[in-house]
Amino acid sequence: MRIAVVAGDGIGAEVVAEGLKVLDAVLPGVEATPYDLGAARYHRTGEVFPDSVRDELAQHDAILLGAVGDPTVPPGVLERGLLLKLRFDFDQYVNLRPSRLWPGTSGPLAGVKPGEIDFVVVREGTEGLYAGAGGGLHRGTPAEIATEESLNTRHGVERVIRDAFARAGNRARRKVTMVHKTNVLTHAGGLWARTFAEVAEEFPDIATEYQHVDAAAMFMVTNPQRYDVIVTDNLFGDILTDIAAAVTGGIGLAASGCINPTRAYPSMFEPVHGSAPDIAGQGKADPVAAILSVALCLEHLGHPDEARKIEEAVATELSGRTGEPIRTAEVGDRVSVLVA
Amino acid sequence: MRIAVVAGDGIGAEVVAEGLKVLDAVLPGVEATPYDLGAARYHRTGEVFPDSVRDELAQHDAILLGAVGDPTVPPGVLERGLLLKLRFDFDQYVNLRPSRLWPGTSGPLAGVKPGEIDFVVVREGTEGLYAGAGGGLHRGTPAEIATEESLNTRHGVERVIRDAFARAGNRARRKVTMVHKTNVLTHAGGLWARTFAEVAEEFPDIATEYQHVDAAAMFMVTNPQRYDVIVTDNLFGDILTDIAAAVTGGIGLAASGCINPTRAYPSMFEPVHGSAPDIAGQGKADPVAAILSVALCLEHLGHPDEARKIEEAVATELSGRTGEPIRTAEVGDRVSVLVA
Ligand SMILES: CC(C)[C@H](C(=O)O)[C@@H](O)C(=O)O
Ligand SMILES: CC(C)[C@H](C(=O)O)[C@@H](O)C(=O)O
Repeated sequence: MRIAVVAGDGIGAEVVAEGLKVLDAVLPGVEATPYDLGAARYHRTGEVFPDSVRDELAQHDAILLGAVGDPTVPPGVLERGLLLKLRFDFDQYVNLRPSRLWPGTSGPLAGVKPGEIDFVVVREGTEGLYAGAGGGLHRGTPAEIATEESLNTRHGVERVIRDAFARAGNRARRKVTMVHKTNVLTHAGGLWARTFAEVAEEFPDIATEYQHVDAAAMFMVTNPQRYDVIVTDNLFGDILTDIAAAVTGGIGLAASGCINPTRAYPSMFEPVHGSAPDIAGQGKADPVAAILSVALCLEHLGHPDEARKIEEAVATELSGRTGEPIRTAEVGDRVSVLVA
Repeated sequence: MRIAVVAGDGIGAEVVAEGLKVLDAVLPGVEATPYDLGAARYHRTGEVFPDSVRDELAQHDAILLGAVGDPTVPPGVLERGLLLKLRFDFDQYVNLRPSRLWPGTSGPLAGVKPGEIDFVVVREGTEGLYAGAGGGLHRGTPAEIATEESLNTRHGVERVIRDAFARAGNRARRKVTMVHKTNVLTHAGGLWARTFAEVAEEFPDIATEYQHVDAAAMFMVTNPQRYDVIVTDNLFGDILTDIAAAVTGGIGLAASGCINPTRAYPSMFEPVHGSAPDIAGQGKADPVAAILSVALCLEHLGHPDEARKIEEAVATELSGRTGEPIRTAEVGDRVSVLVA
């Protein structure tokens, strides 16, 4: 197995090191090759994502990413040039974001106990408003206009909805909630709703429901226990998964995968958190999200037992926390011992 | 003063009746004319919003709306045909949504106390993805595509941002947070960001910050205390205000105004909640959101003292609640006595 590692900027390198430590403990011998991409390289060389690097990444089984970016890079440069380019070039159409309130942790919601929140968001990753189809006229004048276009195909919508149903079939509650805004975005919403209804017929034993995105954003706070699998479009998924991270104790623990289920191209696994320049280099970033990203990666690559081991070790680690400050490397050490 | 009243469907009539009761107590003699619009009329006559009714509504100083809709109306019919048509035809470009954790109430967030959350969202109301600019091809085939286009003008963006700054100037903390997704929606995001920076220069004593919508959705759960005035686009505002309603104890208490600050056309005031068919006709809907909508209406029409009186009476009402079931009419009676 060959993994490309993009440690990136800020705390990226620190947390990825612990992810790799745990990977080596649970499945020794995986080949991990570092690639230098992100804000630091951009500042040094002006390069964001050379085609040659992309072609090399394409040769790997998966990509593990730490975090890229710093506040001095103009908005969009690394996002469009690197992160979204990876998602689009490698057709990573399932943006997978599990949300659990882990044992030993407490989220911001009064009266919600560990174990009660346990859902996964299947966010479409290659279409919608992320397609980059926008433009403008008369920039800088009173007549200026700007547009952004959401592009949705039956092809793209159907495959991600089918993926969500398949995942629900492997879970205890077997329920899929589709989230959109069909009452306002009637064109895209109609395509999503009709496709959802048709795919649902292939999965008669999976329960379904539909919610508008504004209602879902509300329920994610007032009743996140109700969700099992959520399937939604690219931008709605971006917003909902950050609410999900918030109610499950913050992005410090949230892992994600940008997955191409066909494996025609490598999938990418990364913590939801950013490069956190304010705490970089101090050895105090929580590597749990990076470690859980390794578990998602192993699951995707056909090593579910190793993935479960990591999740159980993380549960033990989090249950044992006493409120002491986190030492990044010590977390990785403890989890490694548990999975070895 | 002439108010058009669209009680609408479900609990709409029940809560609006209490709003009008309170209005009459605080400012006797306002002329209130009922208009029959909503799901019931649509089912009865097939009509959504005849032009003749629109022309009559245009003659009023403001519109008070209860709630429209029921689950049997196809998605989009009443939204696009009535609610959004009102916003667009009457150029209600400020969609105003105050969010407070009221005295005597408790939201879902552990450790957040009444009074600590107090912000207002200024949501753009006439542009963006709500413009209805979308389409599709090859419907019902594997080749189907659907688009939704977000339309943004300097005109529209500038006026709503300026309104947000003006409102911040009347508040204690004097801070405006602009929310967008400039790192992905670079065209619209660029227009919003440049306009925000330029308008900010006219208000040197107002503090500013920018957040991506996903981060804002998270902070609205983890730290809603940080916000004072939020200005954002139409769809982001839709989602964020439902999170805001959730963290302040639910949409039962949330009021909103679709405001045309120029007063060239009437503005509309309505509870954020829907028609709630499940509890309609039982006299147990909470009319507080409708009553607070009347306060927003009075504020807009130049009666700030009466608006404050209503808000104080609502604070007293909510502080006095003991967990007994709500009786809609009794709430209106108590608040009316307090404001008279
Ligand atoms: C950095 C940005 C492009 C990205 C997104 O919007 O998808 C991030 O917010 C995420 O959720 O992975
Ligand atoms: C009913 C719908 C059109 C509306 C919107 O999306 O604006 C509602 O959700 C709201 O927030 O007022």
